[in-house]
Amino acid sequence: MATYLKELYCPRCSATYNPHEPHNLCECGTPLLVRYDLERIAREVTPDVWERRPEGLWRYRELLPVVHEENIVSLGEGGTPVYELEKVASEYGLGRLFLKDEGMNPTGTFKARGAAVGVSRAKELGLKTLAMPTAGNAGAAWAAYTSRAGIKMVVVMPQDAPLTTQAESVAYGAETYLIKGLISDAGKAVREACAKYGWFEVATLKEPYRIEGKKTMGLEIWEQFGGNLPDVILYPTGGGVGIIGMWKAFNELRELGWLKGRLPKMVAVQAEGCAPIVKAYREGKDKAEFFQGAQTIAAGIRVPSALGDFLVLDAVRKSGGTALTVTDNQILDAWKHLAVTEGALICPEGAACVVAAKKLAEEGFIASSDSVLILNTGAGMKYTELLKEKAKLLESGSLVS
Amino acid sequence: MATYLKELYCPRCSATYNPHEPHNLCECGTPLLVRYDLERIAREVTPDVWERRPEGLWRYRELLPVVHEENIVSLGEGGTPVYELEKVASEYGLGRLFLKDEGMNPTGTFKARGAAVGVSRAKELGLKTLAMPTAGNAGAAWAAYTSRAGIKMVVVMPQDAPLTTQAESVAYGAETYLIKGLISDAGKAVREACAKYGWFEVATLKEPYRIEGKKTMGLEIWEQFGGNLPDVILYPTGGGVGIIGMWKAFNELRELGWLKGRLPKMVAVQAEGCAPIVKAYREGKDKAEFFQGAQTIAAGIRVPSALGDFLVLDAVRKSGGTALTVTDNQILDAWKHLAVTEGALICPEGAACVVAAKKLAEEGFIASSDSVLILNTGAGMKYTELLKEKAKLLESGSLVS
Repeated sequence: MATYLKELYCPRCSATYNPHEPHNLCECGTPLLVRYDLERIAREVTPDVWERRPEGLWRYRELLPVVHEENIVSLGEGGTPVYELEKVASEYGLGRLFLKDEGMNPTGTFKARGAAVGVSRAKELGLKTLAMPTAGNAGAAWAAYTSRAGIKMVVVMPQDAPLTTQAESVAYGAETYLIKGLISDAGKAVREACAKYGWFEVATLKEPYRIEGKKTMGLEIWEQFGGNLPDVILYPTGGGVGIIGMWKAFNELRELGWLKGRLPKMVAVQAEGCAPIVKAYREGKDKAEFFQGAQTIAAGIRVPSALGDFLVLDAVRKSGGTALTVTDNQILDAWKHLAVTEGALICPEGAACVVAAKKLAEEGFIASSDSVLILNTGAGMKYTELLKEKAKLLESGSLVS
Repeated sequence: MATYLKELYCPRCSATYNPHEPHNLCECGTPLLVRYDLERIAREVTPDVWERRPEGLWRYRELLPVVHEENIVSLGEGGTPVYELEKVASEYGLGRLFLKDEGMNPTGTFKARGAAVGVSRAKELGLKTLAMPTAGNAGAAWAAYTSRAGIKMVVVMPQDAPLTTQAESVAYGAETYLIKGLISDAGKAVREACAKYGWFEVATLKEPYRIEGKKTMGLEIWEQFGGNLPDVILYPTGGGVGIIGMWKAFNELRELGWLKGRLPKMVAVQAEGCAPIVKAYREGKDKAEFFQGAQTIAAGIRVPSALGDFLVLDAVRKSGGTALTVTDNQILDAWKHLAVTEGALICPEGAACVVAAKKLAEEGFIASSDSVLILNTGAGMKYTELLKEKAKLLESGSLVS
């Protein structure tokens, strides 16, 4: 397996690091990114090599950081479908509206991509114990892949994290803790414990490889849209790794000369009750402030402070995108509506993007000629506790009166 | 879109029916099967056409019954991964043990395949209201696809069907009823209502197209194993549509001349508390009797009587396979073990096959040189209510004592 992994670099101070040893943040406190030898890839590889391989994340291995194939820890992640939402598009006055369904991943969310690559690299670097704070789904995904890799995993989640994600993390054998408070409180507990016990911290962007896994969403979109990209991509933004990853993918493809056309407008969608990125975007700031009293039913975007905020804001601005909020009621309504109209039971975070698409169409930001892609980051069946309606008991045992 | 759909036929009395109008059972009471013009396919198509299309069920459209492409109702079903269970294989004295993870389908189970093709054909034939009894997952899947197709759906499930499947069916907007009793009682209520209200009954094998969707598991296995098939395939057998479908796929491929080697041994796995097929197999019978007092935690195989029993028994015997039972305790143990060992949170029905593989290795039915494939029919996250262990609350907010 040829590797094109070159170095780790800091997007803020430009310091570089050896990728063959474990690193968390840059000395300046910034998340590290992975640099590949793109010139050599452009000389030695053509994209039809990817096309001929089985679908899934690892078909893009030249743009992934794993050096030795035997370190790949896989549960069949990636290769998720894109399908069209014709009825909702016509209702909302949108042209072509597509949904990429990341629910069809191991553990039912896009977190599997980051975990697959992050855990594979942790295995390659010989790490023994990983620890992370999580809103729920990332913990479930990392618990699955560390179980497969034989690495010890410690997961800390808010007490009100979705029950299914709590149970998944426990089932995979991760040491799983609940904490009173937010993901930021869980983060503090993990930081302290890593410092004391020498565990390797894998919180969002605290290690550089999760983003490489998420990047593959962008590579797949490029393939699935036949080498062109949609005009607008809406992404539910918590830690923001997906938007950073997709933007990195598009820029790498461009540098390789494999992407000729324009890049999509990247739209960061947040909940009204937790919108640090949207606030910073509106105020013209480069970084976001801690969002006090964060509250939303969409647990995955209840992230009051994100290490990669400046990278998200950069992608949104450079792409000509925007950032906006939606309310919990709007999320719930769209969530139910998509299931009964399109047969798509998505996650609340994905539903937030459906609402955002509608709003942006109304405001004229999205034109009816635009092709629009929504990232649904997880399977709706993990969230059926949000549904109040119940099945009816047939007391008589008969449907015929 | 070229169609090779030829006719419906009865595998018992050989009567044939026009496929361009709706049919339930043969007049002799037997499930109908779909016949294609295989000679014409062999002349006009080569398998590399399939390989060049995107992954997923519809790449095999020449062997599927939909006539007009616009009738395809799709949520991105099929194209599920196969991965290896190395640790468990070596523990159990097996050679190569593979798992095909059908949990990575829309609605999280293999039922999506049957629903995709069944609902597409219902749309093509102009049906307005469908009704079915279900253990849970089929109802959720048909609710999703009928929602997408704009067809009315009535679902009846046992009162103790898994909660997630109840909620899914409701969320998709299907009329969803619970009944005291088993799937056979739900079946009676649906039959009566269909007779009275003119709804079209889509219970297991009561219409001929669900099986065509399930058949695509067999086509994928053939592709994923590079044109050769595993030596042994283990399948959790409730209604048995999957085993019938895979067997039909293998035989169609053979008739097309695309499958040269031997066919796999097909193994039907049932629960000790509900084992009509295993009983008939052991007694050398062609049909199974109603299994009194059916009881198992694996809801998907709690099917006391299956219309297609004779087809399952035929596939098992012709393939040189076998049929065996496992206990609920064994299922639960294997279910937990696979999650902590392999990072695979599967469904109880899939876990039943893991136990069966172990037993058959011990008995010598499976040799250590055999390649063995387990069908995991659904995502384990739908069954986390089976897990007794819980996450621990960190009262102090800290992991550092």
